[in-house]
Amino acid sequence: MSRTISVALTPSGLSPECELHQACSIIIDVLRATSVMATAGVSGAKRMITCENIHAAFEIAAPSDSGRADSNLADPATERPLLCGERHCKPIDGFDLGNSPAEYTPDRVAGRDIVLTTTNGTRAIQAAMRSRRLLAASFLNLAATVAAVESEPHLQIVCAGTNGQISYEDVLLAGVIIDRLNECGDGPSEPADHLDDSARIAWSTWRQSQTPARSLEETLALSLGGRNLIEAGYQADIGRCAQIDAIDGIVERVDPGEAVFRFVREA
Amino acid sequence: MSRTISVALTPSGLSPECELHQACSIIIDVLRATSVMATAGVSGAKRMITCENIHAAFEIAAPSDSGRADSNLADPATERPLLCGERHCKPIDGFDLGNSPAEYTPDRVAGRDIVLTTTNGTRAIQAAMRSRRLLAASFLNLAATVAAVESEPHLQIVCAGTNGQISYEDVLLAGVIIDRLNECGDGPSEPADHLDDSARIAWSTWRQSQTPARSLEETLALSLGGRNLIEAGYQADIGRCAQIDAIDGIVERVDPGEAVFRFVREA
Repeated sequence: MSRTISVALTPSGLSPECELHQACSIIIDVLRATSVMATAGVSGAKRMITCENIHAAFEIAAPSDSGRADSNLADPATERPLLCGERHCKPIDGFDLGNSPAEYTPDRVAGRDIVLTTTNGTRAIQAAMRSRRLLAASFLNLAATVAAVESEPHLQIVCAGTNGQISYEDVLLAGVIIDRLNECGDGPSEPADHLDDSARIAWSTWRQSQTPARSLEETLALSLGGRNLIEAGYQADIGRCAQIDAIDGIVERVDPGEAVFRFVREA
Repeated sequence: MSRTISVALTPSGLSPECELHQACSIIIDVLRATSVMATAGVSGAKRMITCENIHAAFEIAAPSDSGRADSNLADPATERPLLCGERHCKPIDGFDLGNSPAEYTPDRVAGRDIVLTTTNGTRAIQAAMRSRRLLAASFLNLAATVAAVESEPHLQIVCAGTNGQISYEDVLLAGVIIDRLNECGDGPSEPADHLDDSARIAWSTWRQSQTPARSLEETLALSLGGRNLIEAGYQADIGRCAQIDAIDGIVERVDPGEAVFRFVREA
């Protein structure tokens, strides 16, 4: 099968010519939004709703009139969506959870909807909303994501970046997705897929990161996103986001046009 | 010496925080503007004036009133600046020269000023105009450029890209400049300089391009800029722009604030 892979190294790098409506898009915000989504998913979160700003998050999480009137519902405090996310790496006032994967344990999120707003990741999702199919990927669920998209003829990978700048950690994940889809292995073989220039650059970046040998955690700590997290006191999150293939399932948008995701265990 | 190197993979990738006024910037448009500038320089062009649009080029090249009144001047046709450049890879109506390095022979350009307007390269120059020092680099004058900047503490490399998109060929040159400045050689050593994420990506892209062995001309032909040139019938230019270190001199801006460059042979 002839597959084309395009990469936007930041959301603004989406080519005006790219035909998103035909594409399966993969959103990447390694540190930390898409790692949080995979973790929330495997911990049993029901739906993950992403939105770009804090005001919209509060609106979505507010109990609806019909909900309030329905006295059969269980305790509203456990039924309303959890407010989740960060600004400048930090938790948001009045929110339930921040943006550390460690917070998304089954006892906090199982059976709950979560509403997530982050600085970079949710913006990248919005930029690719017109895609035919939309997944959110992290190193945590790399293998599952690769398996879920391998028969897609047009892949568009969108790296969230950091405040508009290209982030090494997101480019690395884009690169290893391309590497695995092409089964490049350890040899010198190049991808057989048709890659655009940014996809070739992402793949090169991943391959080069493998010499000298260094743990993924160490590599991520060198990146813009990693340095920002360390500065903000969230160094432990880097190790957590570096656990390749720890989660066996994908994070996929439910319906076109809506930023609502669910976690799906691969068969 | 501790050196910092930042790369903008397109002009819009220039970080808002980058302090251009302290930086030595290197503009890269491998295919073909900065290769043309090196070629014109070594062929004896006096000054190279870049401008963003065709109208401005005609204005700059028009004989001034004082010039016209000065009957001591030689034939005005040989004294006025040459109009040079391209749109959509093609020569511009009413211009003297296009954007193929092969056109810039000593018999055409020696002793003449040239006014150059191209789709991507001259825009990148404009974006970095506030830099303390400004050079235009190509594979043709790679060694001379590296020698000229090696004592600069703050380097900002700006890749021109192609119509706003990242171009592999420009990223490659950014990468090899970083590689040579750090004397990485053929071993597995990493740059000692402080690299931002895009600089690390550019360096990785260059290193990875070295395996499997492929000529630079073949590599450039795979790039967005290369494919566009082939489609427009300028395949021969790719080989010409791939002659690493064929030209021993740099292309450097003369005075801050003005897009006027001259060719300087290294001592």
